[in-house]
Amino acid sequence: MRHVTEPSASIPGLLKKLSRRAEWAGGAPIANILMARTLAQPDVISLAAGFVEHNSLPVEWVEEAFRRIWANRSHALAALQYGTTSGYLPLREAILERLRQADGLSAAEHRASVDQMVITAGSNQLLYLLAEALLDPGDIVLCGAPSYFVFLGLIQSLGARTVGVATDYQGLIPEALEDRLDELERHGELDRVKAIYVASYFDNPTGVSLAADRRAALVEIAHRWSRRHRIYIIEDWAYRDLRYEGEDIRSVWTHDVSGETVIVTGSFSKSFSPGLRVGWGLLPRSLLEPVLALKGHLDFGSANFNQVVLATVLQNGWFDKHVTRLRAIYHEKVATIVSALESYLPPILDVHYEAPKGGLYVWVRLPEEIDTGVDGPLFQAAVNEGVLYVPGEYCFPAEGEPVRRHYLRLSFAMPDCDRLRCGVERLSRALRAVVQCD
Amino acid sequence: MRHVTEPSASIPGLLKKLSRRAEWAGGAPIANILMARTLAQPDVISLAAGFVEHNSLPVEWVEEAFRRIWANRSHALAALQYGTTSGYLPLREAILERLRQADGLSAAEHRASVDQMVITAGSNQLLYLLAEALLDPGDIVLCGAPSYFVFLGLIQSLGARTVGVATDYQGLIPEALEDRLDELERHGELDRVKAIYVASYFDNPTGVSLAADRRAALVEIAHRWSRRHRIYIIEDWAYRDLRYEGEDIRSVWTHDVSGETVIVTGSFSKSFSPGLRVGWGLLPRSLLEPVLALKGHLDFGSANFNQVVLATVLQNGWFDKHVTRLRAIYHEKVATIVSALESYLPPILDVHYEAPKGGLYVWVRLPEEIDTGVDGPLFQAAVNEGVLYVPGEYCFPAEGEPVRRHYLRLSFAMPDCDRLRCGVERLSRALRAVVQCD
Repeated sequence: MRHVTEPSASIPGLLKKLSRRAEWAGGAPIANILMARTLAQPDVISLAAGFVEHNSLPVEWVEEAFRRIWANRSHALAALQYGTTSGYLPLREAILERLRQADGLSAAEHRASVDQMVITAGSNQLLYLLAEALLDPGDIVLCGAPSYFVFLGLIQSLGARTVGVATDYQGLIPEALEDRLDELERHGELDRVKAIYVASYFDNPTGVSLAADRRAALVEIAHRWSRRHRIYIIEDWAYRDLRYEGEDIRSVWTHDVSGETVIVTGSFSKSFSPGLRVGWGLLPRSLLEPVLALKGHLDFGSANFNQVVLATVLQNGWFDKHVTRLRAIYHEKVATIVSALESYLPPILDVHYEAPKGGLYVWVRLPEEIDTGVDGPLFQAAVNEGVLYVPGEYCFPAEGEPVRRHYLRLSFAMPDCDRLRCGVERLSRALRAVVQCD
Repeated sequence: MRHVTEPSASIPGLLKKLSRRAEWAGGAPIANILMARTLAQPDVISLAAGFVEHNSLPVEWVEEAFRRIWANRSHALAALQYGTTSGYLPLREAILERLRQADGLSAAEHRASVDQMVITAGSNQLLYLLAEALLDPGDIVLCGAPSYFVFLGLIQSLGARTVGVATDYQGLIPEALEDRLDELERHGELDRVKAIYVASYFDNPTGVSLAADRRAALVEIAHRWSRRHRIYIIEDWAYRDLRYEGEDIRSVWTHDVSGETVIVTGSFSKSFSPGLRVGWGLLPRSLLEPVLALKGHLDFGSANFNQVVLATVLQNGWFDKHVTRLRAIYHEKVATIVSALESYLPPILDVHYEAPKGGLYVWVRLPEEIDTGVDGPLFQAAVNEGVLYVPGEYCFPAEGEPVRRHYLRLSFAMPDCDRLRCGVERLSRALRAVVQCD
C-alpha cells in the first residue's frame, strides 16, 4: 500500500539515469512549446503554431465516411480491428493513384508499387522512422538554410548533425549543395552524409517551392556523390496539395530513374485533418524492411480506424472537394496577411517577404540588427502586444550556413482574416517599439 | 523525368548504409510476421496472433460516441484538430479515475496527478518511448522468463539486453530477482540495470498474475538496489480489465510510496478496440519530460479524434458495459480451449498448463524433448494440420535464465469456440505425429 514505508525511500538525490538519446532530445521540442502556448492563451493571436484553419475542418466529410463505413457491419468491425504495419491497402492504393496523377504520369510511367507505400501517424512519424533507420550519432543530413525546424530538432535529438545549404527564392541552390558536399569530402566527412532533406512544395518556413529546373540537378548530385553508400533525398510533400496560384510542378521523385534515391513523405494533417494523424511515405525498396521493422517495434502500424476513414474519403472524391474549398479559404488568408504586412509594417524599415503561392507560412526578413529570438526585445514586445511568431533562428541547421536571427515565420492558417490583420498590426506595433528602443 | 539517364545510376553494388539501430532491429518483429500470416491464410486457425474477438468489437459504442461528439459541431471540430503531446485531458482524467477505482483507493490515497498521465498509440508506443528514454546499448532490463516477446524484441532492437528472472505460477519470484541483481553486481553490471518489467495481471504469455504478497517485495527490491540511479519497475496492465474469475488485486504501483519507482502502462486495444490504438502510461515525474520530449519528436501526440471517441465512451459508462460483455465471451472461450486441451491432447504426454483466470493466453509446457520452434518438427506439423501457435522460445529473455524450447503460447481470443476446439484438435494431431516420429 502507498503508506508502507520503503527502506531506501529516504536516500537523497537518487538520480534518474536516462539514455544518451533522451539527453540529446532535451526538453520538449519547440513546436510543442509553441502549440501549448497557443492553446493556453486564447487572447493571444498566434501567428506561430502550425495549426490549420479550425472552422474548415472536414466535419461533414468525416461524418459521411463514418456513415458509409458503419452502414456495413463487417466494414465497421474491420476498422476497429488491428491492421497491418504498412497500413490499410485501399488507402495506400488511393494515395499512390493520387501521386501518379499529381505528377502527370501514365500508369506505365509510374513505376512505384503499393508495397513501397507506408502509412504513418502524420508524416512526422515517417521522418522519425527514417531518421532512426539512417542516422547514427554524428551522421549528417544536408538541409536548406532555413528548413522545417521540427525535423532539424528530430535529427539533433538522435545526436546527428544538420548541415545547412544556402537557399534563395527558388529553394535549395544546387551549386551550394555541390560546394557543401565538396567541403565535407575535403574534411573527410562525406561518409557521414546520409540524406538531403528538401520540402519541395511551399517549404516550411519560407513558403518557397524548389524551382522546376533544379529538381533533376538535385537527384543528379545525390547520385554522383553516393560513392560508398547511397545518399537519399527526403522529399517532403506536406504542403503540395495547398497550392493557391500557378501550376503544379513535377516532383523531385520523378527524376529518380532508379527509384532508389528519393523518399517521398506526405501528410493529410494540413490538407484534411491533423486530428486523424494520417501521413504516408513512398520508400525506395532498400528502406522498406528497416523502416517497417522499426514501425513494428513502435506501434505495429497506425490506427486502422483512421485509415479506413481516410480511404473512404479519398475513394469517393470527397478529399478533392475539401481541398478545393480549403485552397479558396487559404488563398484569401494569404492575400489578407500580405496586404496587412504592406499596410502596417513600418515603411522605414528594410523588411522583405514574398507572397507565398501555397502552404501556410510567410517568411519575413527584418533589418539585420533586430534579433527575433525569444530572449530578444522583439519577441517580448510581441508577447506584450498579444501576438506570437516563430523566431527564424530555430529554422537554421546547426552547421554549414550561419544561423540568422533577423527572420521570423508567420503562420496564417489558424486566425480568421480579422485576427490576421489584428495580429500583423500588433506585430507592427512591437516592431516600432523595438526600433524606437534601438 | 524518370526516363532521363542518371550519370552514376550504373554504379554496381551501391549499398544502403543504415543506422546501428536499424541493424539491431533486423527484420520485421515476430508479432508482425505472425499477424501477417494470420491475415494471409484464413483457412489456417491462428492460435498465435494476439488479435481480439472480432465480432464483439464495439461497433455500437463507437457509433454512439461518434453521434454524441458530432451532435455538437465545436466538439467535432476539436476532435479533428491537433491535440497536445500528453493527450486529451478528459481522457486522461477518465483513465486516472478508473485506476483509482481499480486499486480501491480513496481520492486522498491516490496521489497520482493527471499531469503524469500520457496517451500513446497503444501501450506498445509507451513501452517504445520508455525504452528509448532509458536504454543505451548494453543496458539491461530484468524480465520474467518468460515475458511479453514484443517488448523483449524492442529492447534488443535498441542494442540493450534482456536478462531473465525465474517465474512460477505466482509470477516473478522475488528471491530470484534478488539473486539476479546480486549476480549482476558481482559482475560489475548493476549500473547497467535500468528497469524491471512485469506484466502483473494475466501475463502474456503465461496468463499468470503476480501474487498479491509479492508486489510490495518487488518495489522494496527495486528501491534497495537503486544505488547510483533509480531502477524503475514497468508494470504492464494490458490485461487487467480482462479478468474472468476471482477478485482484482491491488497493483504493484500502490506499493510505491514515493511514486517515483513504478511506471504503469495500459491499453484499450485488448479491452475495447485495437483499431483505435489508444494506450496510456502513468509516469513518475522524473520521466515525464524525457518521454514527452521523445513523443514530441515522434508524432506531436497521438490522434486526437480517437482520444475524444474513447473519452466519450468512458465518460458515459459504455466502456464498463462493453468489458462486462467481453469478459463473458472470453470466459466461455477459456473454458472451451481448456476443455479441448483436456479432451484432445495425447494423455500419454507430460503436458502442463493452467486454466487462466483472465487475459488471452494459455501457456503450455510439453515434454522437454519436443522443440516447438518454427524450424522444429512440431511447428511444421501444425502448419500442415492448419493451426498456428507462438513458439515459447520467443518469450524468453536472451540472458539469465535458459531459453526453453518446449513451451507454446495459445491465444484463444480470435477464433470462435468451434474453431478453438478444431484448432486444439489439429494441434493435438500435430503432436501425435511428432511423438510418433520421435
